[in-house]
Amino acid sequence: MLQPFDDTYFMRKALQEAELGLTKGEVPVGAIIVCNGQIIAKGHNQVETLNDPTAHAEMLAFTAATNFLGSKYLKDCTLYVTLEPCQMCAGAAFWTQIGRIVFGAADEQRGFQHWHCKVHPKTDVTGGVLATESEALLKQFFMQMRRG
Amino acid sequence: MLQPFDDTYFMRKALQEAELGLTKGEVPVGAIIVCNGQIIAKGHNQVETLNDPTAHAEMLAFTAATNFLGSKYLKDCTLYVTLEPCQMCAGAAFWTQIGRIVFGAADEQRGFQHWHCKVHPKTDVTGGVLATESEALLKQFFMQMRRG
Repeated sequence: MLQPFDDTYFMRKALQEAELGLTKGEVPVGAIIVCNGQIIAKGHNQVETLNDPTAHAEMLAFTAATNFLGSKYLKDCTLYVTLEPCQMCAGAAFWTQIGRIVFGAADEQRGFQHWHCKVHPKTDVTGGVLATESEALLKQFFMQMRRG
Repeated sequence: MLQPFDDTYFMRKALQEAELGLTKGEVPVGAIIVCNGQIIAKGHNQVETLNDPTAHAEMLAFTAATNFLGSKYLKDCTLYVTLEPCQMCAGAAFWTQIGRIVFGAADEQRGFQHWHCKVHPKTDVTGGVLATESEALLKQFFMQMRRG
């Protein structure tokens, strides 16, 4: 059966958020949260813009999604994020008990899986969706940084 | 030499924040951030009030402190928090590269040390300061909860 709204579709939406971050000089990471096939929250990394080390894409999306739903929990939701979440974001995901996490590129330096961090036992995790596109954006950012 | 502004002094300030949370029906956890002997940020758990699972005392204090200093980093600061930070808050502390973390009660269920989470390698950690007072506040909260 044709699945127009699959993981790739939603990851492309997260990539659009990451691209928005790139235009602002942020490390380009984007996140969206989907509930019953609808995007209920979006976020891109805003650490530089807000001068706030906690302003990762996922954190902003968690806050927006819980606000939208009026619930502390996101059990029936999926987080799409272009880069493997860090320890902080995995910890936040734990508190939300989010149903599913789908990420793009692996983060061997700071990723929660590489650091053996926990998410909620009921959270399903899938990695590697549009990883190449996500990595290409990150490379573009770091190339720009080096050029000054 | 007399040290009026020692760890106990600042932890009492964090406990006052926790008490403020208790009056709002929050799990009573309080945090303050100190830089050069001055309190530059305060926070208490606001998960229920803000309906936001990321609104832990430490997270709110990190955001306030980085905003106050105009810096993403808190290298010369100390976080005083009444309860051992969780994975999320330890992850946020990692990003701030905070110089020191002093906590009160240990959290055997969710504490970052019990979960073997990382803080920044340059962050010094001290636990157990006014732990009994912090535990008493938490017990008071959970007794109130049970009474309905």
